[in-house]
Amino acid sequence: MKNRECSIVNVLIYLSYDGTAYRGFQVQPEGPTIQEELEKALGLVYKQSVRLAGAGRTDSGVHARCQAASFEAPFAISLEKLPYALNSLLPQDIVVFGAAEVPPLFHARFSAIGKVYSYTLDRSRYPQVFLSRYSWHYPEPLNLEVMRQAASLFEGTYDYASYCASGSSVKDTVRTLTKVEVKENGDSDLLTFRFEGNGFLYRMVRLITGTLIRAGAGKVSLAAIEASLAGEESSAPGPTAPAHGLCLEKVLYPDLSLL
Amino acid sequence: MKNRECSIVNVLIYLSYDGTAYRGFQVQPEGPTIQEELEKALGLVYKQSVRLAGAGRTDSGVHARCQAASFEAPFAISLEKLPYALNSLLPQDIVVFGAAEVPPLFHARFSAIGKVYSYTLDRSRYPQVFLSRYSWHYPEPLNLEVMRQAASLFEGTYDYASYCASGSSVKDTVRTLTKVEVKENGDSDLLTFRFEGNGFLYRMVRLITGTLIRAGAGKVSLAAIEASLAGEESSAPGPTAPAHGLCLEKVLYPDLSLL
Repeated sequence: MKNRECSIVNVLIYLSYDGTAYRGFQVQPEGPTIQEELEKALGLVYKQSVRLAGAGRTDSGVHARCQAASFEAPFAISLEKLPYALNSLLPQDIVVFGAAEVPPLFHARFSAIGKVYSYTLDRSRYPQVFLSRYSWHYPEPLNLEVMRQAASLFEGTYDYASYCASGSSVKDTVRTLTKVEVKENGDSDLLTFRFEGNGFLYRMVRLITGTLIRAGAGKVSLAAIEASLAGEESSAPGPTAPAHGLCLEKVLYPDLSLL
Repeated sequence: MKNRECSIVNVLIYLSYDGTAYRGFQVQPEGPTIQEELEKALGLVYKQSVRLAGAGRTDSGVHARCQAASFEAPFAISLEKLPYALNSLLPQDIVVFGAAEVPPLFHARFSAIGKVYSYTLDRSRYPQVFLSRYSWHYPEPLNLEVMRQAASLFEGTYDYASYCASGSSVKDTVRTLTKVEVKENGDSDLLTFRFEGNGFLYRMVRLITGTLIRAGAGKVSLAAIEASLAGEESSAPGPTAPAHGLCLEKVLYPDLSLL
């Protein structure tokens, strides 16, 4: 028994996925999820059931450039070869690109100190077909200067209760956003929002994005945003932007030497 | 009768598509095609059956950034609004982005004087998930210098019979390629081949691409390529590269003022 327990290895993996075909990251009855596909592949590699913990529960249709997940491997196998083994078993829209041993107490979700999300708008007159799975086509006029001012209002520590969709059981709705940026991408007609924070509530990024767009369209005032952040409103002044423009870019951990 | 005939308008449309879900451009019994989707949408707009002629019959799984197609519109409608009307009826992976009236004798295919194709390789260690529908993951080492030399051998007028897959009924297999380029794309780990020519045989671009890659891998000599172009071989020295890396970039017409 002792030997068997000693051989358990805590493993962190990095992966990207196109979330279009999935009902989000976390296992659930209604359809295929990223976690389910990964656990299936891990089960085949380790020849026993393996339970995976994801850093963030991305929603149905949301993508990830660098999601992190950890699991207790029942025995050690080459972490150099693990991504290749998993990718050969995974569908093409999920790619594992890194694996590292982490300390026993490390947990992909609870050890995370922050996350970076992006939201991409396609500002072209007609949708760019090769980007349409990963961006929201929004050709209507937007005032970028106003959007940048609105974005900066979200930087700081606030009670984001009004930016949390119903269906969440979270009690503490205070979060800190360290960066909310609005970036134009050269000639590509893309506009990207970038959000960095210590944590995000259910649909928070999409509610902030919807609010920023309404502000840029002149439909929501900066004062209304300030009021929502001061706890004077029960719901966000903007709508929830669609899932397919959202991407989990990165998960932040305290000690980069772990990675 | 006279009035009715006079009202016919010859229309050229430009469109892009993600070919993943289609059995190529041209209507055929085995599955959905781009042409079929377009003719369905045109039928709804014009309330009668409309027959479309595509500039190039892209294969199953092949994409297009700018395909051209023409049709005789039974009556005139605003060509400014036509793309919006069609896009509202088309699946999301086909986007019409331009429409123009063209002279009565113009035909998208027969009036074309050339085409530009690209073929994209993803050279990353692990596939880039957001590009995997539009590139072939090929992480193995390649000698770019040799590939550039090989590419230049294809520039010129040759009998490309050995670069024509079986299944084609074309008699004259002589074509002129004005440009065959090998381009690195900055930091993106992408390698793109660009082919410009007056016409392309069935699977010609994919056979040349397969040959260029074999040359870059040191498995096909420049002499073997020269022999294939001199008509000394009945088949190409390389394999057919997979469809999903290929994209019809542009169709060339004699008079740009038409566009």
